[in-house]
Amino acid sequence: MDALQSFFSTQAAPIAIGVSIIALAYAIYLIITVLKQDAGDERMQEIAKAIQEGATAYLNRQTMTIAIFTVILFLIMAFVLPAGEHNDGVLTAVSFLIGAIFSTLAGYIGMSVSVRANVRTTEAAKKSLQAALSVAFKGGSVTGLAVVGLSLLGVGGFYYIFTSIFNIPVEAAPKLLVGFGFGASLVSLFARVGGGIFTKAADVGADIVGKVEKSIPEDDPRNPAVIADNVGDNVGDCAGMGADLFETYAVTLIAAMILAASTLSSQLGHAGIEYPLMLGSVAVIATIIGTFFIKLGKSRKIMKALYKGMIITGILSAIGFFFVNQLYIGDINIFYATLVGLGVTLFINIITEYYTSTEYEPVKRIAKSSETGAGTNIITGLAVGLESTFLPVILIVVGIFLAFYFGEASSLNNGIYGIAIAAVAMLSTTGMIIATDSYGPITDNAGGIAEMAELPEGVRNNTDALDAVGNTTKAVTKGYAIGSAALAALVLFQAYAEELSLNAPGADFTFDLIDHRLIIGLFLGGLLPFLFSSSCMQSVGKTAYKVVEEVRYQFRTKKGIMDGTQKPDYSRCVDIVTKSALKEMVFPGLLAVLSPLIVGYLLGPISLGGLLAGAIVGGLLLALQMCTGGGAWDNAKKYIEDGHHGGKGSESHKAAVVGDTVGDPFKDTAGPAINSLIKVINTIALIIAPMIAAMSVGL
Amino acid sequence: MDALQSFFSTQAAPIAIGVSIIALAYAIYLIITVLKQDAGDERMQEIAKAIQEGATAYLNRQTMTIAIFTVILFLIMAFVLPAGEHNDGVLTAVSFLIGAIFSTLAGYIGMSVSVRANVRTTEAAKKSLQAALSVAFKGGSVTGLAVVGLSLLGVGGFYYIFTSIFNIPVEAAPKLLVGFGFGASLVSLFARVGGGIFTKAADVGADIVGKVEKSIPEDDPRNPAVIADNVGDNVGDCAGMGADLFETYAVTLIAAMILAASTLSSQLGHAGIEYPLMLGSVAVIATIIGTFFIKLGKSRKIMKALYKGMIITGILSAIGFFFVNQLYIGDINIFYATLVGLGVTLFINIITEYYTSTEYEPVKRIAKSSETGAGTNIITGLAVGLESTFLPVILIVVGIFLAFYFGEASSLNNGIYGIAIAAVAMLSTTGMIIATDSYGPITDNAGGIAEMAELPEGVRNNTDALDAVGNTTKAVTKGYAIGSAALAALVLFQAYAEELSLNAPGADFTFDLIDHRLIIGLFLGGLLPFLFSSSCMQSVGKTAYKVVEEVRYQFRTKKGIMDGTQKPDYSRCVDIVTKSALKEMVFPGLLAVLSPLIVGYLLGPISLGGLLAGAIVGGLLLALQMCTGGGAWDNAKKYIEDGHHGGKGSESHKAAVVGDTVGDPFKDTAGPAINSLIKVINTIALIIAPMIAAMSVGL
Repeated sequence: MDALQSFFSTQAAPIAIGVSIIALAYAIYLIITVLKQDAGDERMQEIAKAIQEGATAYLNRQTMTIAIFTVILFLIMAFVLPAGEHNDGVLTAVSFLIGAIFSTLAGYIGMSVSVRANVRTTEAAKKSLQAALSVAFKGGSVTGLAVVGLSLLGVGGFYYIFTSIFNIPVEAAPKLLVGFGFGASLVSLFARVGGGIFTKAADVGADIVGKVEKSIPEDDPRNPAVIADNVGDNVGDCAGMGADLFETYAVTLIAAMILAASTLSSQLGHAGIEYPLMLGSVAVIATIIGTFFIKLGKSRKIMKALYKGMIITGILSAIGFFFVNQLYIGDINIFYATLVGLGVTLFINIITEYYTSTEYEPVKRIAKSSETGAGTNIITGLAVGLESTFLPVILIVVGIFLAFYFGEASSLNNGIYGIAIAAVAMLSTTGMIIATDSYGPITDNAGGIAEMAELPEGVRNNTDALDAVGNTTKAVTKGYAIGSAALAALVLFQAYAEELSLNAPGADFTFDLIDHRLIIGLFLGGLLPFLFSSSCMQSVGKTAYKVVEEVRYQFRTKKGIMDGTQKPDYSRCVDIVTKSALKEMVFPGLLAVLSPLIVGYLLGPISLGGLLAGAIVGGLLLALQMCTGGGAWDNAKKYIEDGHHGGKGSESHKAAVVGDTVGDPFKDTAGPAINSLIKVINTIALIIAPMIAAMSVGL
Repeated sequence: MDALQSFFSTQAAPIAIGVSIIALAYAIYLIITVLKQDAGDERMQEIAKAIQEGATAYLNRQTMTIAIFTVILFLIMAFVLPAGEHNDGVLTAVSFLIGAIFSTLAGYIGMSVSVRANVRTTEAAKKSLQAALSVAFKGGSVTGLAVVGLSLLGVGGFYYIFTSIFNIPVEAAPKLLVGFGFGASLVSLFARVGGGIFTKAADVGADIVGKVEKSIPEDDPRNPAVIADNVGDNVGDCAGMGADLFETYAVTLIAAMILAASTLSSQLGHAGIEYPLMLGSVAVIATIIGTFFIKLGKSRKIMKALYKGMIITGILSAIGFFFVNQLYIGDINIFYATLVGLGVTLFINIITEYYTSTEYEPVKRIAKSSETGAGTNIITGLAVGLESTFLPVILIVVGIFLAFYFGEASSLNNGIYGIAIAAVAMLSTTGMIIATDSYGPITDNAGGIAEMAELPEGVRNNTDALDAVGNTTKAVTKGYAIGSAALAALVLFQAYAEELSLNAPGADFTFDLIDHRLIIGLFLGGLLPFLFSSSCMQSVGKTAYKVVEEVRYQFRTKKGIMDGTQKPDYSRCVDIVTKSALKEMVFPGLLAVLSPLIVGYLLGPISLGGLLAGAIVGGLLLALQMCTGGGAWDNAKKYIEDGHHGGKGSESHKAAVVGDTVGDPFKDTAGPAINSLIKVINTIALIIAPMIAAMSVGL
């Protein structure tokens, strides 16, 4: 017993590595299970293959583009960053590279499974809703487990290598992990932006000509942009989302470890630093168990089935946290901080569901306003989006308050550590959250395949039911990611402040609001998400315009498309959005990477601190507004399609389609990418902190 | 000569009072001139009378509603605020009451002139564009002069009474003026919100049924909501705007005086405190002279005529500032700070014109995107709005940097005073800015009257040309007001911080970003404008829905309306929006007033500081996005109506009308009201600072 206890309390990194391998092994098992399912008839497989090919081709080219940036940054970091005590520059650069590679890998795994699970879900939907849910959810679980498995493996693995192989002291190791976080953030930024532009340009373009001008249904095989649209679901909602949560998870872990290293190592030694790894490990096991419980009950409510899985994962995690806490910290208050984190996750779910589900007032309000046209639909949708920031922000503020309180009340007397632990606990269940999210694009695709293969209506009804819930879970994931960013960024900010003082001893780095340099940074930081989202939305608009022109051209020149005697050329639309998305993702990417560098080197560390704070506050609000508002618009349209306010084809429906079109780049391009934006500037600030601190005191 | 110099350098308050009286006298002269103009035929006068009656009836009821709040707050302040050394509580309460009354008065004067200048502009437009511009601009000038005249009179008058009659020391007097600023802010908040809801609910409601469903032109007399729409221009764009800039002007002056009193009185005595009053006085004279230069040149470019007036006012002000600076400060650096302020005003104009004029790329981009429907029009418009925050924020940041630099470089060694003086200089030309703005709603109304009275097309063309420029100048004013708010709020924040320290000596009130209480406040502050705008937009949506139902009902039940054999009942629509606007303005009003109180008393002074900073950063960005984006949408529609992308009645035009509808509550309800929101919470914070400071140290 004592031996066991001693093992658990000293071997956090090996345990994290072991658990990661279990998660990845289980993911492989799930992949095999999914691939064993029936992939349907020849027509279905042909469609699925087109989607697969388009998605793989795009992801390959996106990876090549990102690789160029990654290599350049790798070289800069390796040669420019100060060597420090333990060859910090090179180690940071290497962990950056691996972070980027792992994140890319997580995206590839998720996407590869999705583009195979989709057609199998269609086939399963011929049988029953439960069968379809099962296949789709298994596919989603693969992404979830791959993301957390690789992320935990990366963080735990590097920590192990640094401390046990390179013999770097435990309190110096976490700082070197920032490179890993930065690599992950960089990839997620480009994946979110590029994938987001791809998916929404194709979607909006297809809808404008298909639904609005030609009055043909969604996913109609006569629409030349239909394959591009379905490819988009995979590269945006699946690969992009995977990369996003990969970095969110990794950066939060790393931030907590850095904080513990700098403020707690004298009190707790390695325990405070390794505690986050153990929380992550426990929750991964809880997630695997939780996935078994996602089954439709008698009520056949899909959301209820998902909640069941999430709540079981949460409860099992909490139990595990309790024991880990006993071993590592030994103060019940820090355990309470983990409960705060789990509570925030739960309430983010409930709040987002309220705002985006067809069952509640906000979506119904938007649907009703569609009766008086597109104008009022948009006004109401924008208002709902703005309003939907309220409860999440209050929730986060209460979370900060409580977590800080427990941190202070503990024997550690460290409020920020309380916040860091709450953030880690909040994100520990990422695997489950991704699983419930990622099944969404799979069913969305499954529905598309059913439509294109002209399967009976019952199949489409099953996939549609799953897809409507998918809109809500997608919104939840985004709220979850951006909400956790608020907590993680606080911790990163603290680390940034300490890094400054450490590297310019004696200098005063107070981030005082009456300091005009801070205010300047705050304004610039607030501006950043606005400018960034503008660029993303503009790109979607521009690219969609090209798609519309191409689709109109094909309808005009191939008269046989509409009566089914001629086949549209799907590949041309895929090609247009691929090229355009890759081109358009460069500006927002550069904006994110260059802003902290310019502000840091030109205006100094205080203004850079303001930039970080401004970006997190402005970004949190804008992202919540966009993600939740977009989800609500989408489901308001679905609500009308279910027969309310005149149903499909009515004037209300047309108005709601316009709202959905506007919501698309909000919720799937600009909104979620803000999370990565915040992390990129935070990790860059942390990396350059020693240099700008030295500069600012004239060293 | 010496006697003159001595008079000018010691009698700032009497000079300010004298200049105010000159401004008001000139305004009265202009009123007489306008009223002398021909008011047109009987039909025109009948329409104008209906607008007058509706506007007056609404403003009376709005004033009654605001009066209730004002009296309650007056009593609370008089009895709850600590008496202090010079009966501070009662004096603050009295100056609050007078601030509210003066602001209301400015609104009434502006509106009363507008509803009489409108029909006279229509009549003048029969003759020529220049004649119409002349009448409309004279009407606008009345509002401009009334606003700055009353504001300067209030601030200068109270300062004189406090120091010369009550013998309160000069350094204690400015603090008592906060009440005046708060009264002005409170009225402007309600006037902006109530008037904004009124004007846009009527406008949107009228457009949805008239333009979209019935395909009758704007301002068609058959539309039952047409009078309500025209009333709205006066109560929102004129009275609301007047109250807004009244408070902006007053609060900026007061903030600068408070700052000088607390940080400069040992160096400069009364001179530093009274310098802002002198800057204001000089600029009022420059404004009066500037108005003479607003005449159409050979190019017949309206915008050019307005620029001419503004630039002459700016140059004359700068010359005056130079001499005043010699007398009062004697350091050229502080004069440079005033130039920074004037420069910011100039560039805000140029930037806003670029984003909202039909001549430049952004508006054309929105117009082009209308070709593919309402969805892409909205996406592009939102993107343009988000993007339009960039240059103004950079401008403000550069302004802060330079003004701080000059303040530091001066012998005063006081960077914040540099910023305060730049803000005062920026706002000193308010009279001219209002004049160029306020002529907009007059011409908008004039066009409406021309349409309703079925005058020849040439008349409408003249008023339309003026109105299109009006859209840009309206956007300029809002950017100007919110931009100056950013500077003024910085100064108010400084005053808040000092007030805290003063009232709890020894306590540490550092607003450090690593303090979680500050972060909590920052998040809540950022949230405030989001929640506030959501509520405003929701109100417009709800009220517009009621208008649409009423208008549809009238068209349904009175079949003769469409062929002109039956008259619609205009008063019912006016009544609906009146009731609804008054009801709906309560929630946003309470939100603004209660937030700082709740945060201040519950979470303490540090969180309240965060709230202020969060609200100013979030508010600035959101307001810029909404005001500029809305203006761009409106002019994109006008650009299409000028014959581009298919012209009037085309599919592009329909899409652009939807965009305009969405932009309406952005630019005329939610966006501009954010300025008042920021000021209200700032002035409240300043008033309660002594109490919460004492509470927080347990006194």
